[in-house]
Amino acid sequence: MSGLFDSRWVDLPSHATEIEPTTLAAGFRAAGVHCGIKSEGLDLGLIVSDEAETTSAARFTTTAAPAPPVIVCKTHAKLDRLRAVVVNSGNANAATGGRGRDNAIHMVGAASLVSGVGEELVAVASTGVIGVQLPQSDISRGMAQISSQLRSDGGDDFSRSILTTDNGPKRAAVKVQLPSGDVTISAQAKGAGMMQPNHATMLCFIQTDAAMTAETCDLLLGVCVRRSFDRVTVDGQLSTNDSVFLQASGASGVNVAFESEDELRLGEALDSLLRGLAIAIIRDGEGARRIGRIIVRCGDQLQAETVARAVANSPLVKTALYGGDPNWGRIVQAAGMALAGGEPVPMAVEIEGVEVAHFGGAADYDEAELAKLVAASEVEYIVTMPGEGAEAEVYFSDLSHEYVEINSAYRT
Amino acid sequence: MSGLFDSRWVDLPSHATEIEPTTLAAGFRAAGVHCGIKSEGLDLGLIVSDEAETTSAARFTTTAAPAPPVIVCKTHAKLDRLRAVVVNSGNANAATGGRGRDNAIHMVGAASLVSGVGEELVAVASTGVIGVQLPQSDISRGMAQISSQLRSDGGDDFSRSILTTDNGPKRAAVKVQLPSGDVTISAQAKGAGMMQPNHATMLCFIQTDAAMTAETCDLLLGVCVRRSFDRVTVDGQLSTNDSVFLQASGASGVNVAFESEDELRLGEALDSLLRGLAIAIIRDGEGARRIGRIIVRCGDQLQAETVARAVANSPLVKTALYGGDPNWGRIVQAAGMALAGGEPVPMAVEIEGVEVAHFGGAADYDEAELAKLVAASEVEYIVTMPGEGAEAEVYFSDLSHEYVEINSAYRT
Repeated sequence: MSGLFDSRWVDLPSHATEIEPTTLAAGFRAAGVHCGIKSEGLDLGLIVSDEAETTSAARFTTTAAPAPPVIVCKTHAKLDRLRAVVVNSGNANAATGGRGRDNAIHMVGAASLVSGVGEELVAVASTGVIGVQLPQSDISRGMAQISSQLRSDGGDDFSRSILTTDNGPKRAAVKVQLPSGDVTISAQAKGAGMMQPNHATMLCFIQTDAAMTAETCDLLLGVCVRRSFDRVTVDGQLSTNDSVFLQASGASGVNVAFESEDELRLGEALDSLLRGLAIAIIRDGEGARRIGRIIVRCGDQLQAETVARAVANSPLVKTALYGGDPNWGRIVQAAGMALAGGEPVPMAVEIEGVEVAHFGGAADYDEAELAKLVAASEVEYIVTMPGEGAEAEVYFSDLSHEYVEINSAYRT
Repeated sequence: MSGLFDSRWVDLPSHATEIEPTTLAAGFRAAGVHCGIKSEGLDLGLIVSDEAETTSAARFTTTAAPAPPVIVCKTHAKLDRLRAVVVNSGNANAATGGRGRDNAIHMVGAASLVSGVGEELVAVASTGVIGVQLPQSDISRGMAQISSQLRSDGGDDFSRSILTTDNGPKRAAVKVQLPSGDVTISAQAKGAGMMQPNHATMLCFIQTDAAMTAETCDLLLGVCVRRSFDRVTVDGQLSTNDSVFLQASGASGVNVAFESEDELRLGEALDSLLRGLAIAIIRDGEGARRIGRIIVRCGDQLQAETVARAVANSPLVKTALYGGDPNWGRIVQAAGMALAGGEPVPMAVEIEGVEVAHFGGAADYDEAELAKLVAASEVEYIVTMPGEGAEAEVYFSDLSHEYVEINSAYRT
């Protein structure tokens, strides 16, 4: 995706270079086809590593209402040895009960046949409408098509097969110079809301040709997801289907050892890539016009987190961002709500580097100047409370007429 | 307010009768004037009990960013003996620091002079824009006007002086037949959001001519607020200024003793009155077209509460309500999010009495029939999870284009 690293909030490290975004890391083949779940557009995808020693890691939604594909990944797959991931869009296979679980297992079985790897090495993901059973015959037909289309240049089709209400594909690839040699990381994501109108979810598939242990995969993915997809919100709604997969084929022959300089550099590049994709998701948030970043500083990490999320999810803060309104009172209100039940907490607020409220009330600032600053495409807010050492940030989209339009008009 | 008891969710008990809604209970005088805080309309009000033995109780926002009037009530007033309450609209006196506190104390002093009661017997409330200092000269001039206008028929003006973006005054009065004699309860409320675009807040002032101890006042108010104002949400945003006051003048000569049949019946009437006003607030919620009630049943009260609030505050559920869309998947998703981090929880969902999802997935229901039911002005949702004995309900407004319009266009 062009412009992935344009945000002032994402820096690609100097040892990484963006390459053609549809590239797949060496050792991987992928495909995407139209099988009929959606009325038009690609809706079934498969990505396969040809390397027997592939390692992997995964992260899933923490919801108490997980969709069957999430449950099947957790109960049936060796998440540290994944060779293939099969995914469909247009139907989330969520809230579909035992039959939904059978259907997810059927998808895994079909992908296993097509990719020639054991069922336990196949993960499954779905995104789309909730509460409707998957059309198994469409999936079977689609998998048959895919079997002849898996190619090392299939990244474009694959990245399109996972979309729902996204305005376009979100994918990127970087070449990373490590002390031990060059490797590639490629990734394909979807999401235009943490939760789409059709419960469409955030999904991300990441491939690298670096060789590393499953433990290193898990460590790198965990750290980078916490700093990227875990830090963005469109509407504060956790999905039934969120899933992120990292696969390392080892096809580059470059080994990334535990706690090595290689690992550090690869981690920096992965961090940048995932932050870029996460911000691309909120920039493509349903109806989004502007995006914001809230940073909270105080003496307690949980407090910082709670306040940052409350501000990022406040419909009043989000409508003000949409309206280009420097309404800092709504920041104070949301922060106060987040800490409700305790003693009053003094707060200072900065918007785009301008102090608008200090601990005693409104600061003396130029309203017209500030109004100009908050009309930009990215707006940064900082809340400071007493104490030191804790900081949390959350990126968020605005709340617009288009959000209401998309979400009120969906099914009927 | 006409139609206060029209909701199917509020029943006026048979021993209570609605009377002229601008009535004040005996022993009270009130006034409302325009002093210039707002460009037009009444913006300063005072309500006074002439009875020396008046008892009272109050409830306030639990925010960690309380406005100075809330702080001053808590630190300076005898909340169990309040004779007078002074209130302004158009300016919340919130996030105004030490000067804001001085201004709130000044309002109390002026009200004390005008009403002839000690400063410690006066409460203060404000609602309106945040972060701007109160114009003290306007307040002083307004209080001088009020001194000649306090009247027992001043309920209409008073109920208008507390409004901000409300579409109209919200007030009601009921005559209650108690075993010991007849009493009156009157009340005036404002709020068109838990949090208005101008941080306008929910305020309610309640008067009765029953005689009761301050403890009984506190007990009745506490129970009834928990069942009314604590159970409604427009945008899930807790205000800096929410305040509710109950004053009992005793002017009826009817004594309501602790744990008596009188207390029970008075409580039932107060409950109905406050629930009616609370629902009037969400019905007048910013841009609201429809209102919903979510009931959650399970084996754990905290879990029931958490899920009910998550559903009521989900922008996806609220936009679906706005669109008249029976999108039950969003109910399951919000409930799952509320219980995130634990084991999967099976759920059943009913909309307007129609089972749409049972524990295994979608139920077999008539889509067209359901679409008709959710296009009504009030829509009821029930979520059932395993376990018994716990139940929570929350009333909520929808999320509309008008909400975005009102809140994005506010200041600039």
